Amino acid sequence: MDKDYLNSLIDKLLKNDISKDQFVTYLTGIFSDEFKFDTNRKLRLGFHEFIFGESKTIQQLIEIISSLEKNRIPFICTKLSDEKIDVISKKFPEVEAIPEAGMVRYFFTPPSPKKGEVAIITAGSSDIPIAKEAMFTLDSCGIKSKIFADVGVAGVHRFFNIKDQLYSYDILIVVAGMEGALPSLVAGLFPQPIIAIPTSIGYGTALNGFTALFAMLTSCANGVTVVNINNGFGAAMAAFRILQNKYREDTDV
Amino acid sequence: MDKDYLNSLIDKLLKNDISKDQFVTYLTGIFSDEFKFDTNRKLRLGFHEFIFGESKTIQQLIEIISSLEKNRIPFICTKLSDEKIDVISKKFPEVEAIPEAGMVRYFFTPPSPKKGEVAIITAGSSDIPIAKEAMFTLDSCGIKSKIFADVGVAGVHRFFNIKDQLYSYDILIVVAGMEGALPSLVAGLFPQPIIAIPTSIGYGTALNGFTALFAMLTSCANGVTVVNINNGFGAAMAAFRILQNKYREDTDV
Amino acid sequence: MDKDYLNSLIDKLLKNDISKDQFVTYLTGIFSDEFKFDTNRKLRLGFHEFIFGESKTIQQLIEIISSLEKNRIPFICTKLSDEKIDVISKKFPEVEAIPEAGMVRYFFTPPSPKKGEVAIITAGSSDIPIAKEAMFTLDSCGIKSKIFADVGVAGVHRFFNIKDQLYSYDILIVVAGMEGALPSLVAGLFPQPIIAIPTSIGYGTALNGFTALFAMLTSCANGVTVVNINNGFGAAMAAFRILQNKYREDTDV
Amino acid sequence: MDKDYLNSLIDKLLKNDISKDQFVTYLTGIFSDEFKFDTNRKLRLGFHEFIFGESKTIQQLIEIISSLEKNRIPFICTKLSDEKIDVISKKFPEVEAIPEAGMVRYFFTPPSPKKGEVAIITAGSSDIPIAKEAMFTLDSCGIKSKIFADVGVAGVHRFFNIKDQLYSYDILIVVAGMEGALPSLVAGLFPQPIIAIPTSIGYGTALNGFTALFAMLTSCANGVTVVNINNGFGAAMAAFRILQNKYREDTDV
Amino acid sequence: MDKDYLNSLIDKLLKNDISKDQFVTYLTGIFSDEFKFDTNRKLRLGFHEFIFGESKTIQQLIEIISSLEKNRIPFICTKLSDEKIDVISKKFPEVEAIPEAGMVRYFFTPPSPKKGEVAIITAGSSDIPIAKEAMFTLDSCGIKSKIFADVGVAGVHRFFNIKDQLYSYDILIVVAGMEGALPSLVAGLFPQPIIAIPTSIGYGTALNGFTALFAMLTSCANGVTVVNINNGFGAAMAAFRILQNKYREDTDV
Amino acid sequence: MDKDYLNSLIDKLLKNDISKDQFVTYLTGIFSDEFKFDTNRKLRLGFHEFIFGESKTIQQLIEIISSLEKNRIPFICTKLSDEKIDVISKKFPEVEAIPEAGMVRYFFTPPSPKKGEVAIITAGSSDIPIAKEAMFTLDSCGIKSKIFADVGVAGVHRFFNIKDQLYSYDILIVVAGMEGALPSLVAGLFPQPIIAIPTSIGYGTALNGFTALFAMLTSCANGVTVVNINNGFGAAMAAFRILQNKYREDTDV
Amino acid sequence: MDKDYLNSLIDKLLKNDISKDQFVTYLTGIFSDEFKFDTNRKLRLGFHEFIFGESKTIQQLIEIISSLEKNRIPFICTKLSDEKIDVISKKFPEVEAIPEAGMVRYFFTPPSPKKGEVAIITAGSSDIPIAKEAMFTLDSCGIKSKIFADVGVAGVHRFFNIKDQLYSYDILIVVAGMEGALPSLVAGLFPQPIIAIPTSIGYGTALNGFTALFAMLTSCANGVTVVNINNGFGAAMAAFRILQNKYREDTDV
Amino acid sequence: MDKDYLNSLIDKLLKNDISKDQFVTYLTGIFSDEFKFDTNRKLRLGFHEFIFGESKTIQQLIEIISSLEKNRIPFICTKLSDEKIDVISKKFPEVEAIPEAGMVRYFFTPPSPKKGEVAIITAGSSDIPIAKEAMFTLDSCGIKSKIFADVGVAGVHRFFNIKDQLYSYDILIVVAGMEGALPSLVAGLFPQPIIAIPTSIGYGTALNGFTALFAMLTSCANGVTVVNINNGFGAAMAAFRILQNKYREDTDV
Repeated sequence: MDKDYLNSLIDKLLKNDISKDQFVTYLTGIFSDEFKFDTNRKLRLGFHEFIFGESKTIQQLIEIISSLEKNRIPFICTKLSDEKIDVISKKFPEVEAIPEAGMVRYFFTPPSPKKGEVAIITAGSSDIPIAKEAMFTLDSCGIKSKIFADVGVAGVHRFFNIKDQLYSYDILIVVAGMEGALPSLVAGLFPQPIIAIPTSIGYGTALNGFTALFAMLTSCANGVTVVNINNGFGAAMAAFRILQNKYREDTDV
Repeated sequence: MDKDYLNSLIDKLLKNDISKDQFVTYLTGIFSDEFKFDTNRKLRLGFHEFIFGESKTIQQLIEIISSLEKNRIPFICTKLSDEKIDVISKKFPEVEAIPEAGMVRYFFTPPSPKKGEVAIITAGSSDIPIAKEAMFTLDSCGIKSKIFADVGVAGVHRFFNIKDQLYSYDILIVVAGMEGALPSLVAGLFPQPIIAIPTSIGYGTALNGFTALFAMLTSCANGVTVVNINNGFGAAMAAFRILQNKYREDTDV
Repeated sequence: MDKDYLNSLIDKLLKNDISKDQFVTYLTGIFSDEFKFDTNRKLRLGFHEFIFGESKTIQQLIEIISSLEKNRIPFICTKLSDEKIDVISKKFPEVEAIPEAGMVRYFFTPPSPKKGEVAIITAGSSDIPIAKEAMFTLDSCGIKSKIFADVGVAGVHRFFNIKDQLYSYDILIVVAGMEGALPSLVAGLFPQPIIAIPTSIGYGTALNGFTALFAMLTSCANGVTVVNINNGFGAAMAAFRILQNKYREDTDV
Repeated sequence: MDKDYLNSLIDKLLKNDISKDQFVTYLTGIFSDEFKFDTNRKLRLGFHEFIFGESKTIQQLIEIISSLEKNRIPFICTKLSDEKIDVISKKFPEVEAIPEAGMVRYFFTPPSPKKGEVAIITAGSSDIPIAKEAMFTLDSCGIKSKIFADVGVAGVHRFFNIKDQLYSYDILIVVAGMEGALPSLVAGLFPQPIIAIPTSIGYGTALNGFTALFAMLTSCANGVTVVNINNGFGAAMAAFRILQNKYREDTDV
Repeated sequence: MDKDYLNSLIDKLLKNDISKDQFVTYLTGIFSDEFKFDTNRKLRLGFHEFIFGESKTIQQLIEIISSLEKNRIPFICTKLSDEKIDVISKKFPEVEAIPEAGMVRYFFTPPSPKKGEVAIITAGSSDIPIAKEAMFTLDSCGIKSKIFADVGVAGVHRFFNIKDQLYSYDILIVVAGMEGALPSLVAGLFPQPIIAIPTSIGYGTALNGFTALFAMLTSCANGVTVVNINNGFGAAMAAFRILQNKYREDTDV
Repeated sequence: MDKDYLNSLIDKLLKNDISKDQFVTYLTGIFSDEFKFDTNRKLRLGFHEFIFGESKTIQQLIEIISSLEKNRIPFICTKLSDEKIDVISKKFPEVEAIPEAGMVRYFFTPPSPKKGEVAIITAGSSDIPIAKEAMFTLDSCGIKSKIFADVGVAGVHRFFNIKDQLYSYDILIVVAGMEGALPSLVAGLFPQPIIAIPTSIGYGTALNGFTALFAMLTSCANGVTVVNINNGFGAAMAAFRILQNKYREDTDV
Repeated sequence: MDKDYLNSLIDKLLKNDISKDQFVTYLTGIFSDEFKFDTNRKLRLGFHEFIFGESKTIQQLIEIISSLEKNRIPFICTKLSDEKIDVISKKFPEVEAIPEAGMVRYFFTPPSPKKGEVAIITAGSSDIPIAKEAMFTLDSCGIKSKIFADVGVAGVHRFFNIKDQLYSYDILIVVAGMEGALPSLVAGLFPQPIIAIPTSIGYGTALNGFTALFAMLTSCANGVTVVNINNGFGAAMAAFRILQNKYREDTDV
Repeated sequence: MDKDYLNSLIDKLLKNDISKDQFVTYLTGIFSDEFKFDTNRKLRLGFHEFIFGESKTIQQLIEIISSLEKNRIPFICTKLSDEKIDVISKKFPEVEAIPEAGMVRYFFTPPSPKKGEVAIITAGSSDIPIAKEAMFTLDSCGIKSKIFADVGVAGVHRFFNIKDQLYSYDILIVVAGMEGALPSLVAGLFPQPIIAIPTSIGYGTALNGFTALFAMLTSCANGVTVVNINNGFGAAMAAFRILQNKYREDTDV
């Protein structure tokens, strides 16, 4: 609630600069302000809309994108199949397709670059699409990131080859399927915030990613945080929260 | 690997200040250095040892604590039953018992206070012991925190009563059992990093905390990170990673 | 058992108005009466048949619908794929197709409007098809309802924007996938009967709707009742039971 | 939001009856009003507090009850073990112990009787404690109920013996463990609202009540609603919602 | 082991009627005799082979059927998709296709009719294909059966309409999906052996038949035996075991 | 329904031997007759009551047994802990305690011996208590049985040592925990009805008996039927159904 | 089957060195020989009996041990609680108690030492009891082993400190709870056979050892084999199989 | 670490044969040496690369294979669908397609034959593809193996027919779906190392192979080791570890 604005309104009312009806209308705006998050979200994140594409039909997606594009509202849309991306690309040439990450996005004004950089480390090469979902989400928020792929525990020398490069990053996102062991190794070696993404790579007891998820949550290394299976988007937004909190002077919203 | 030190060693060897044997010994130290984490952990965290008390018998705990106390090594030990805490308290008067958090700890030198403050928000009053595990772990790392208890979604006005106090905190730890809905509400309203702790409160379909865990991981709000069920310690350590990364100048380890 | 009718039969037997054989036949009718539910169902619900379309082949559906249409028996059929609806629509032009709810229906005489009105509230826009299944089922029973879509917990201001409109409804059906938190919020704010429908929206730990289901069942708000995952039809029928019980004078069947 | 009151306040401000500061203070009251639910809950339910006793230690319970009793606030507390009930009974003689339902309660003023009556039907005699939890919760809300015990599907004649008595009840709560078949039978025969409570009776594939829960949710009878395993309290509160909605003139809160 | 035959062999050896080598060969026959089950199976079941079609490719099936047909060995093959049945029917005109039961079969000599008759009772019409798998398996063993369809618990009058017809059957096979309640009702009313088949009909908490399976296993009625989900073949073979044991004089194999 | 009796009643009514009121009363008896199962159960099973002891408190058990003993109604009570058996034994000296089977029983008149004999085969020695539950239940029904213990698949020679003795039994009950493989072996070798009982012996992946249960249900041998985990009583009752059906002339009830 | 022995028997019979009766007796021995595993087991393993102690009561254990001791048959008995070990130790002074491994054992003649040596590596100190179960089982088979404790992935330097010592061992048994990551690391670095033992250490998503089990089975390193949760005995026996196969000349049994 | 080489380097440095910079570079090589596993893998296994084909798109596979073929690096690629194999076969004529095992492979130089032979035993004919995956993996490592198919427990005579042939094999791989009983039988009869592969054959309670997996892990026979469901490749690599350990003189890597 903006008390200065409230006082200025009262002054205007007392001076008859505004009518009683206008005053009531303006009041509602002030007190409801904490619930007008559209504006907040833009201020906070640098653009307007995220769309979860998986559970929506292509018809629903076309309607939503048409509406957003018409109003020139930037958005990213995740978890899209190749088929959906194809249809959207053809119908909306201004929308940028990123099939390797299962995403499309649309920017009226590109986000200004932000401070901080994120390392995205994957255990296998099959984890790369999820790593890219995280990378492009961060990019859409104006944050730089770099993918270090295929350095899983089964050939631990591969990880040690890249180890020295990781100390300079603000946040380490670690992506792994199957037994999901890599975040434990990383968290035992590095002091930064660790965000673990389990992936659905593997079969049988990999349980479509639940084994990696449970392994990461019960990691013997301390301070590992975890997001949903294959949730590259969520890990990126968690990193965004940490970085904006780190580098902004004021955290008021 | 400290290259300056390496070069100085080579110089000494060339100048015969050290023997070949000494040189070999020192080399081993340099190259193995990255694996000498005991020292690292002290530097990084401010003290030496965490002990997971649940899976250890009282005999094992007494042996470990005796050894640590004898060497005056600070430690915290979590997930202790009242019975174990009783025995430890009587045997080791210098060890501090914190039964409401299921912990004991021992400090040779108290940790220096660190920048940053954490809000720990609980859905119900039954979640308080886990909130305290987080609070005392943070305290043991020199970080201030405050618990806002019993503000769950079922009586959402209770949360709105404390809402304005939360903006100033660096990190929001949200603790909830049963349906675990509170982190979604909080993450929709606040821009800070959110660490969600599911608790095992509830019965039947609460599934000993798995429903809350799964709910938090599949939150419709973005950027929520999650730790294991009842893992107050882990959430605190994740917060510690974020804060030390935020407020320290150099992140080298 | 209709005792008056029984006594009149006995009188007729004693007066020789009916034979012993006729008497035995009529008796059977009286005592079996409680099991002749076809008639009961029509009286109670306003029409004859519900068909669960998911587990039936298109051949089976055509046979059943042919038979019902030939006898001009009204019915609704739920959980139909677009393919099945297409085939049925072409073959039976009199059958009404409602693809957005996965339903078809056929009415010889439209049901008379009934008292009471139901609000159907959804957490996300992906939940709308299940909300429509509930709405059209209610409509088929002669009951009005209104959908309030996309007001989930992650952007709680959206819910508060519609809050004042909900007090006038008799029953609140709340539809949510992912973490299924909305019914807890609603039940904490409103005194009406709450029927929660979990949906299968989400991935990974959403568990195809089981996380929402378990969350709703273990809600910290009291008096929430729950139906099967995606069961818009069932929630509507539960609402129908409550409303017919509320507004009818006699509940005898 | 009370617009009349708001306008009167503005009038007072314009007339200088109140200061600007007072006006701001009063405004806050109006706009926050919708979140002051304590008062609402009392108005709506007839008393103040429900306490979930299972996850609280005896120490916590004593603190809470002391505080409520001191303020003469009525409450019921559910899911208490015999041991907890014993301790509470001895310490608080004014608190009423109901060990057969695992409850205690305390009433400053008894609730006024309400219209409507609930039948509570159990499949086996082992389900009776949960039926009593429902009965005493209803009683605590001023609602009459009657238990019809041990009439499960395996000896279906027992159910038919009581069948005629059930038509006059407003709501049927059906309690069953093991295979949980009874609600399907009841819902096929009766038009009233059906609230099914699965219990944890049985072993092996009874899965501590989950088989009954899942069976009730996937009932082939329509319009069955379900609450958590062993949740007699929740079923009673759902019935309370239906009845207060049925018999009260105004549903405003 | 046939001791008389063994002694006669020894006599022959001692009399030089057979050589040492012959003796060794014959010995092997005697002692291995208990493992020659192919002959046993024909004697016991009336024909040679059952084939589980689900996990085999169409190529594998064609090879197997070619071989069996060439040797004129009767067989039945279950769990076949419509596509597989089509291919088999076209390639092997002598093989009988039973698509409504997902089966094909081939009989060099039809099995002789056996004593005993089985009632197959289904809860819903969607359960009929599994009932037919049982019926045609029994038919292939020479046993008569009759299907009583769509008499589930939700409309219990339908079951009572057929009740009197069931007493004369030797065995009751009860087929049900969703909550799987029908076997409990039947077992409470009838003294015959009950074989329950859970089916995968239903969605959400029907758990692809596991809820019905678990419900049947934890039935409150006593003496219900259960087979795997959708296992019409297995139930028929269990009935075959009971009937051949009942009506045959000697059970030696 | 007894038509002769019905006709005689009508005759009496016509002759004024009974009043109209008496006639109505008697009618009710005839038509409800099919639901008076107490009598049926005695006729069918040879005695009156089975009690499931696990979910009942010792107080409940004492009340029930007092009532049954006072009325001299025979019963068996299963799944009793040693503690419960001790208390019952001391309080009711006439009740027979069978602690090795977790049962007590009470017989006013011993059941007459019935034809048929059952072999109960266990995989391990830890399965013996469940085998005894089956044996004593059969004994309580007047049926002989013999236990063949500790002949599991891991030492298959032990089974072959007893193999020849099994052909003469009417029914084979096979009891196994851990991987539950024994019923498959038995069903591949013997033509009799096979009733498999999974037990909760084993740890880790034995899953408290669910692995054995699932293994038995998905047995590669055909015609195996299964009961709940540890359900010796249920297997015995299933055997009883088969035997009474085999050896009685008339199966009417 | 020993053909030489058979031929020698026939020769003896032909020469009248043995009677017909003796011949028949000896034959049975030869042909049944493959099922006389007691002898085989002694030959193969070096002693007679393993007993699974967990599912047996103390009474059963006393009977079994009395019988074995009387016949001076060596045995080991695993998965014993401290209470059971206490009772056994007092009653049988000759039996060796190994409480840190939950075992007792009894040796008439100590097993002769065998070739080969096994390294047992544990992730945490809480895994040591299971490691000891493996070590003492190997010891009871005459095989040397050494435990390398507390070298888990979270502090990977600890493992590298012992790495060079591991190359000389024949087999690596790796014991880990929580996320079970250590076997992947080890299998990526070493060429020997790897036997992984998951333990039940951890809470919440550790799932009593199932997360470690599933992780080990879906390891990204190749050639890892796994035994049941906490099954130190089983891992030792698997190692025994490998070693006796490696170092013995003839593998005939 | 090669100390001789280190000393020679120091000597060269002291003699100015190498510069300080060269010395530092060489040092890094020595100390990192233990992490250069590519070379190790070739030395150890006889060829270079394994590729997990299931989670990779056809595009990814073409890129990887192109790169390997260009560099003439031998590889095998497993878990390929028929479609993927078709595309690869057409594009890379030199790559060998093995569709019956879901594999392709490419050999610049065929592996030299190794000592030792493996028996692969399957319970059913549907298990053969997984058996072939194991066989061709072994073949790719230069190891001979033989498949004994369709000898499962339900017709145990089939297994006894092949029994005598199995003693001469070094390792027994046992493949089974459904109830997974065969490894228990085999491990009870044979002293060799047993590697059990559960397969996903079966339906309902077969749980896509988890029942077989759990059954094998909780086998009552001792010393059975297990790999992931359908993991023919993993079982082969485990056998390879055992054999190379058995037949090679030096195990250094």
